[in-house]
Amino acid sequence: MYIDPESWAHWKEIGEFRDGTILMKELVSVGSKAAVSGAGYFQGEYIGLEATIKSAGHFPDEPGNWAYYSFTTPDHKSLTETAKAFPAPACNACHAGAAADDFVFTQYYPVLRAGKGTKGDAVGGTLSNLE
Amino acid sequence: MYIDPESWAHWKEIGEFRDGTILMKELVSVGSKAAVSGAGYFQGEYIGLEATIKSAGHFPDEPGNWAYYSFTTPDHKSLTETAKAFPAPACNACHAGAAADDFVFTQYYPVLRAGKGTKGDAVGGTLSNLE
Repeated sequence: MYIDPESWAHWKEIGEFRDGTILMKELVSVGSKAAVSGAGYFQGEYIGLEATIKSAGHFPDEPGNWAYYSFTTPDHKSLTETAKAFPAPACNACHAGAAADDFVFTQYYPVLRAGKGTKGDAVGGTLSNLE
Repeated sequence: MYIDPESWAHWKEIGEFRDGTILMKELVSVGSKAAVSGAGYFQGEYIGLEATIKSAGHFPDEPGNWAYYSFTTPDHKSLTETAKAFPAPACNACHAGAAADDFVFTQYYPVLRAGKGTKGDAVGGTLSNLE
């Protein structure tokens, strides 16, 4: 998972995904369940690239103003140069129902959780859930 | 996995880990094997931070000039501010024997593999293995 530096700085201070946040996700298959260092789940092949962008200006009608993209070819063997946003039911419906923080599945992103700032809470609860 | 930007640029062009390369690894437990998006391995808790540095100046006697560090407390619950390099048998012996590229386990790092440059090969084989 990657986040643009400005939104990361905001997240670390305020604990919210600012308007303009771009998250990129690399999808990776499991390559091995054992290595010389012991048992675990070790990455295999690089099989996809996805993005989500939060922008009230670009996506005024999307829930939470989030739009979702895949830059992966259907066979998961190469990347595309451009992508169209998925329709909301294809992605956003699950994100709205099951994502832990705003529309982001932070329950699966421990480093995002570890870096989350608290300034937003100090000024009146988790603002991102009120949008 | 993270790599310092200068060494990443060198890797993308030449396909070798330059002297001065710093790799950082976040260790994460498996949090779930199923999510609303389907089956998979989803990250759980952030349980460690490790580093390896290649430097002929700092580690002239280490195989490949690589040294290895852990910034994790033994209970895997917090991070340390400083770390001492492990003795070579604790890390480097396995890296020497089983790592796919130089002393790095690129077999488990698909994004590093995908980004590897080829200019180094053009001027006489995989130089990193000849050091």
